[in-house]
Amino acid sequence: MRSAVVVGTGAIGTSIALALAAHGVSVHLDDVDSTAARTAEAMGAGTLLPPDGPVDLAVLAVPPAHIAGVLTRLQRSGTALAYTDVGSVKSRPQHDIEATGGDRSSYIGGHPLAGTERSGPLAARGDLFQGRPWVLTPSDRTERAVLNQALELVTLCSATPVVMDPVAHDQAVALTSHAPHLVSALMAARLAQAAEASIRISGQGLRDVTRIAAGDRVLWSEILRANADAVAAVLDAYAVDLGQAVTALRGLDSPDPEVRKRATDRLDAMLEQGNQGRARIDRKAGGPTADLAAVSVAITNQPGALARVFAAVGQLGVNIEDVRIEQGPDQPEGFVDLLVQREEAPRVARQLGAGGWAVGG
Amino acid sequence: MRSAVVVGTGAIGTSIALALAAHGVSVHLDDVDSTAARTAEAMGAGTLLPPDGPVDLAVLAVPPAHIAGVLTRLQRSGTALAYTDVGSVKSRPQHDIEATGGDRSSYIGGHPLAGTERSGPLAARGDLFQGRPWVLTPSDRTERAVLNQALELVTLCSATPVVMDPVAHDQAVALTSHAPHLVSALMAARLAQAAEASIRISGQGLRDVTRIAAGDRVLWSEILRANADAVAAVLDAYAVDLGQAVTALRGLDSPDPEVRKRATDRLDAMLEQGNQGRARIDRKAGGPTADLAAVSVAITNQPGALARVFAAVGQLGVNIEDVRIEQGPDQPEGFVDLLVQREEAPRVARQLGAGGWAVGG
Repeated sequence: MRSAVVVGTGAIGTSIALALAAHGVSVHLDDVDSTAARTAEAMGAGTLLPPDGPVDLAVLAVPPAHIAGVLTRLQRSGTALAYTDVGSVKSRPQHDIEATGGDRSSYIGGHPLAGTERSGPLAARGDLFQGRPWVLTPSDRTERAVLNQALELVTLCSATPVVMDPVAHDQAVALTSHAPHLVSALMAARLAQAAEASIRISGQGLRDVTRIAAGDRVLWSEILRANADAVAAVLDAYAVDLGQAVTALRGLDSPDPEVRKRATDRLDAMLEQGNQGRARIDRKAGGPTADLAAVSVAITNQPGALARVFAAVGQLGVNIEDVRIEQGPDQPEGFVDLLVQREEAPRVARQLGAGGWAVGG
Repeated sequence: MRSAVVVGTGAIGTSIALALAAHGVSVHLDDVDSTAARTAEAMGAGTLLPPDGPVDLAVLAVPPAHIAGVLTRLQRSGTALAYTDVGSVKSRPQHDIEATGGDRSSYIGGHPLAGTERSGPLAARGDLFQGRPWVLTPSDRTERAVLNQALELVTLCSATPVVMDPVAHDQAVALTSHAPHLVSALMAARLAQAAEASIRISGQGLRDVTRIAAGDRVLWSEILRANADAVAAVLDAYAVDLGQAVTALRGLDSPDPEVRKRATDRLDAMLEQGNQGRARIDRKAGGPTADLAAVSVAITNQPGALARVFAAVGQLGVNIEDVRIEQGPDQPEGFVDLLVQREEAPRVARQLGAGGWAVGG
């Protein structure tokens, strides 16, 4: 990557620009807020001068609702060879792009899983994404060269690429980010009218559970709106569990020993499942770096070929941890290396082979 | 306080014993687990020898379900002049004590709001309670001398006494500790079966919300059982809010503009209320030390006199931040200084005076 445009010089956009500039990429900054753009320029994130011709990659660091509009405008003026964004929701922009007649072949969705509690260019850091996951969501139209540009962007930002389907991504963040935000906000909301003595005797547990409830409510309203169905689905399931928890609590003192036993067992099972769910996060945090192995698959450079192989692996229930493509974008075909958990690799190779894919060493 | 018995040499009991011993109190340790007791003794928390005669105070650091039984046994053998406990729930033990025929005049409930993630005597620290709130829940029978012994205990542990009604205490911890625990556990439980990719892209927000879900499930099952009704009441209200949140999420895309507007407003109001509730905790954490003023009230040394004045203040919606009693326990009457927020003091004095209490400067 030699040149890039970064649209939106908030904390995320400017952090990306700083990382790219540090690797010698020629970065052009663009923001409707000229103060923010000048601040980013002064921080060494790039230049406010427009590029001479099409850049290698345009990164849209704008709110999700603006992605399709900005993309279509940039594509019409031929700003870049490839386009990506950093929105925290991925299905909606895809639909918007289709609806506004944007070119899907030169676009790939992106979502770096990193953030700062502060906003604006001054909150930016070139190492913000270091070691963090960065989801890429190619559509069935995304060209391989575009995926490669995005993979290079992720690498230059020292992040770890994770390829996902846009819908699967949105369900995942609904579960791990958006629903927890509302769960936390609703708990904090119950404190708004609480007696002062209750607040006074509260401790670290409540502080942790409600920390994210302090988040910018305008931003969160936008995020929840953009992923409303997936969040509602998680909260529906949560509400069923909550109803059972309340029933169990009320059954603990029942005169009927059968009811008491069921209530006790139910409550214990919930606490146990809470332990298990939490342990998965702890394992992720403290665990060793993933032990990965590559499965090489021959693919043609046709729209949808990559998406089909991703889909085939996804149907095996296996997560693609990383992707390396072993050819230039202008070659007619080549190999893609899919990095998966080492113990999954033999099964992936076998099943893809059985499915008609040419699988190499 | 010259002498004390501490029953239960876990982390809390041993921490109390260490604090008392450091102030020259003669501490006698007692635990059915002789290894724990010997460990606490070796740490300098006290002696395993039984006291020669009644000690000034017995502290019951045993699980809530055992408080009434242990109290009755100690009272029958004349172990101490005053008794308190450290259980995290306060109504249930009161009822148990009445049911088992324990002497309520020499007992005052207690709950130090401090804990460690580890258990056992080796997790004990003499400064565990420093600056932490310590709730005391006198009943209408608790003698003033017993309250005074408990206040001295709290002071020797460098904690801040907070006098509350047992039912109000249990509602407060249901709201600020027990319900948040289940809210967190149920969120974590939804991760137990989640796709590995979802866990992989999770961040700090989820980590915070689910931290307490890792708690000891046997201990939490006991705590929730002991305060089930109050916790169920909080979760019922939470469930109503949750239902409205889901309805709002599903209404954001409604074809009816009225429905869309209501949904947006509802969601924004919830996020706003979450901000407000959280801000109360932040203010508590970072805020200045409370600006308190004393209201002096003349009371007789009769059972229930203190409880009546506490109840009268509670009915004004005012929290008693601290209590000082200006006489020895054997004098027939005297003044109690109620420390309240400075701006509340005039109203408290006026209303207590109107209620027939003799209120001094």
